[in-house]
Amino acid sequence: MINKLIEKIQKTQAPIVVGLDPMMKYVPSQIQKAAFAEFGETLEGAAEAIWQYNKGIVDAIYDLVPAVKPQIAMYEQFGIPGLIAFKKTVDYCKEKGLVVIGDIKRGDIGSTSEAYAVGHLGKVSVGANAFYGFDEDFVTVNPYLGSDGVKPFIKVCKEEKKGIFVLVKTSNPSSGEFQDRLVGEKPLYELVGEQVRAWGEECMGDSYSYVGAVVGATYPEQGKLLRKVMPKTFILVPGYGAQGGKGADLVHFFNEDGLGAIINSSRGIIAAFQQEKYAKYGEANYADASRAAVLDMKEDIAGALAAR
Amino acid sequence: MINKLIEKIQKTQAPIVVGLDPMMKYVPSQIQKAAFAEFGETLEGAAEAIWQYNKGIVDAIYDLVPAVKPQIAMYEQFGIPGLIAFKKTVDYCKEKGLVVIGDIKRGDIGSTSEAYAVGHLGKVSVGANAFYGFDEDFVTVNPYLGSDGVKPFIKVCKEEKKGIFVLVKTSNPSSGEFQDRLVGEKPLYELVGEQVRAWGEECMGDSYSYVGAVVGATYPEQGKLLRKVMPKTFILVPGYGAQGGKGADLVHFFNEDGLGAIINSSRGIIAAFQQEKYAKYGEANYADASRAAVLDMKEDIAGALAAR
Repeated sequence: MINKLIEKIQKTQAPIVVGLDPMMKYVPSQIQKAAFAEFGETLEGAAEAIWQYNKGIVDAIYDLVPAVKPQIAMYEQFGIPGLIAFKKTVDYCKEKGLVVIGDIKRGDIGSTSEAYAVGHLGKVSVGANAFYGFDEDFVTVNPYLGSDGVKPFIKVCKEEKKGIFVLVKTSNPSSGEFQDRLVGEKPLYELVGEQVRAWGEECMGDSYSYVGAVVGATYPEQGKLLRKVMPKTFILVPGYGAQGGKGADLVHFFNEDGLGAIINSSRGIIAAFQQEKYAKYGEANYADASRAAVLDMKEDIAGALAAR
Repeated sequence: MINKLIEKIQKTQAPIVVGLDPMMKYVPSQIQKAAFAEFGETLEGAAEAIWQYNKGIVDAIYDLVPAVKPQIAMYEQFGIPGLIAFKKTVDYCKEKGLVVIGDIKRGDIGSTSEAYAVGHLGKVSVGANAFYGFDEDFVTVNPYLGSDGVKPFIKVCKEEKKGIFVLVKTSNPSSGEFQDRLVGEKPLYELVGEQVRAWGEECMGDSYSYVGAVVGATYPEQGKLLRKVMPKTFILVPGYGAQGGKGADLVHFFNEDGLGAIINSSRGIIAAFQQEKYAKYGEANYADASRAAVLDMKEDIAGALAAR
């Protein structure tokens, strides 16, 4: 799957992933009205609204980008109906040829991580049969529990030719609280990065590993260091746009081959119509605003990479 | 909810939580057969089997223990049908008067952690209405992202009078890989423990905080230290029984008041009938075996506490 992701990045010339993190306040009123008319102001109504909203965005951007990253929390908050909308979104994006990165940040002790890995990337056995539960292409994984928590995912990645992105240095303001603590001479995130490299050596694609890392766009200096620590690791970079990251901050996340990083934008794309810059599209044409925002982001990143 | 948990511990005289972590290999064949006859060897069949299996155990033990801890991964692996079984289990346990600790180990950046908190502990707004998604009483939280990732849970805990248990030192063999790293003079888990104490000071129950900690039974020395670092923090202790922890290892997790810790056993109780010790009950009476295992565990812990 890392090979497919890279191939699609090269074909679209866009190292971009669109974060499908729907919040009701982003969903245009016409979509909310239609969903509530059918299902009432219920969890089912909310789930229908976010699904229709997602579908509009995916239809408008699927030819421009290699991948999407639905954040499962935004669906899970609506309980079972929300998770059904998550699954519909994953399936629809795959039908459209997009690589799907499930942003699930799971991680537990061995047997439990195995259950998450099986449920999100692999197949679970039921009697003589086996079924995919959620069937994303990649998922994000939390490393706090160490190798026990990560290796079950790697096992399933090998079987399914899928991948993971392990949290190394997250984009949020308080990520340094534990991740930046100095262990001897090195911050904790660097040790985690070294471990990610080691885990990744066990399952290499053609040029990059199936085991990637998450490093926030909001920490460009750390990104530069981690790029060197993990040369064969693809880095998923959240925090562009709404969280403050800019194209120029991102060049050091990439290798000399122009690869090695994929930049996520969520709100900046999916709620573009709510920004002054794209307000001319209006609420009815929210998906066109998202398309325009993707094209601008693509130009910003390409410009920054060309200028380095 | 921490007050209710303590009250129930005192009433049952059992600082015990039963981990409802069903795996198909634990589910008695008569239950599997009935479920597959109705739904086929499908995800729905598996979900029905684990739900019926859980129900049998809960009916057999609900009067003996204060709380249960369903591990969501074991349900999530069966996709949407599995999560429906999780929700049914949560609801049924609450009907039976049990405190429900959702072992979800979520944690993300601010707005995303808020969605998890709302979905699992609080209510999500949909138009003019608000709904509980999963509605556990407590959930477990991963601290790797720092305060941003934890505070949204604390906010919802205050609103709903519910609680969390933050991972500090986990029970698995590789937990030391990052958690034991020395930051200056102190291991990382101690710093996390200090932070848990600080977070907990913001929302105190009558004698303990709404913010608890997870510390594995398999690390008794670390438990002793962390007990002192977090005097008002309730500690959820996994790893008893099947993972290797014994009653005598656990005394230092408790305060002098005999409170401050609640010990989890999963496999050791729910799959008791598969152990030699309880084999006499037979597969058909698996729930009676679970009841006997709870009584033995209660005695083991009470004996260890009396002998200290």
